[in-house]
Amino acid sequence: MFGFMRVIYNEQMADLANLLGEMAGLAGSAMERATQSLLQADLLLAEQVITESDRIAEMNTLAEEKAFALLALQAPVAGDLRQVVSAIQIVADVNRMGALALHVAKVARRRHPNHALPESVNGYFAEMGRIAVNMGAAAKEVLETRDPERAAQLNEDDEAMDDLHRHLFTLLMDREWKYGVAAAVDVTLLGRYYERFADHAVEIGRRVVFLVTGVLPPDADVESETI
Amino acid sequence: MFGFMRVIYNEQMADLANLLGEMAGLAGSAMERATQSLLQADLLLAEQVITESDRIAEMNTLAEEKAFALLALQAPVAGDLRQVVSAIQIVADVNRMGALALHVAKVARRRHPNHALPESVNGYFAEMGRIAVNMGAAAKEVLETRDPERAAQLNEDDEAMDDLHRHLFTLLMDREWKYGVAAAVDVTLLGRYYERFADHAVEIGRRVVFLVTGVLPPDADVESETI
Repeated sequence: MFGFMRVIYNEQMADLANLLGEMAGLAGSAMERATQSLLQADLLLAEQVITESDRIAEMNTLAEEKAFALLALQAPVAGDLRQVVSAIQIVADVNRMGALALHVAKVARRRHPNHALPESVNGYFAEMGRIAVNMGAAAKEVLETRDPERAAQLNEDDEAMDDLHRHLFTLLMDREWKYGVAAAVDVTLLGRYYERFADHAVEIGRRVVFLVTGVLPPDADVESETI
Repeated sequence: MFGFMRVIYNEQMADLANLLGEMAGLAGSAMERATQSLLQADLLLAEQVITESDRIAEMNTLAEEKAFALLALQAPVAGDLRQVVSAIQIVADVNRMGALALHVAKVARRRHPNHALPESVNGYFAEMGRIAVNMGAAAKEVLETRDPERAAQLNEDDEAMDDLHRHLFTLLMDREWKYGVAAAVDVTLLGRYYERFADHAVEIGRRVVFLVTGVLPPDADVESETI
């Protein structure tokens, strides 16, 4: 591809990468507000996350269409083709991150006016929320800058998430847990939503590392065993 | 694309579709054995599922490579291109189905020599397992035959799964639940693994319907709200 076609390709690819970055940013911001709605039993905030989740779904469709158009009209090869294929794979991950933020908001709404979480685990979820939001922002940055070091660093963020998740399950399994089964079920599912959100961010990082270096990092830690 | 190129394309595409079908078949058979290992606290069977899960992961990489090679060497357009792009999306779903079967087997292994499940929920999991295995087989069939009616029918199978999942949560949330928090946590996660397995099979069905009819069915039910 030379000249004019090349210019068009570069523009369209940058456009697609920015759209993916924007989706990751929205997923992160949705998780931020979902976490607030959970911690504060804030129904309006939960409703807002739920309403706005349509937007990520629409962007998902748009991103898939853009990737398809790029393949159809530009017939990219080699590294260019690799970029578009990666974009198709990444769009599924960012879409899923948005869905997981939505799940958190729905739990907050379902339990309102009660708090879904026993107060003693608020700190865990505040911290898991903080890490998730950071990872969403990092995924956005990585999609836009293609910085392989920042991408690889997502693994470390994920280790912090896994540690918290493990501690949370230790609490749940402890005979001292005194909040009953219903709260334990909510905490179990919510913990899993945060963990999976982080896993998808790691997966985006892996894809970007592969794009830049040609080597796909091992996914041994993508889904760690918590309990 | 005409003549010789066309023949090669058709062969390679059929090869890729069969590989995806084979992966779906393996995921279904892994879920079958994982469910047995769970119900019977059968450690050897659980270990077997865990050992063989590498195979689905290897096929995942192979399928991604085949799809990439098809795009790179054949530069398909229109409907042909749509097929390859769908294959790239579907491979993520079948891979995930394999991972979820693996999770079930790991819970069985973790709780051995105990049973992970209280006896009173065995019936639920036997039935969820049966539906999951059917859906894996249906996904395989749909990938191989591209029958849009069978594909759409996956939605009905999923409704049966959702019903069971909902009943399971009613049991968990009931004050009569007498098996403690640790068992409730296991049942919560296991229930989610089966439900997500079914969701991915539905997603494969949607993609195939789209391929054949050009219309992507709504995904409203892809992740139903259980609790």
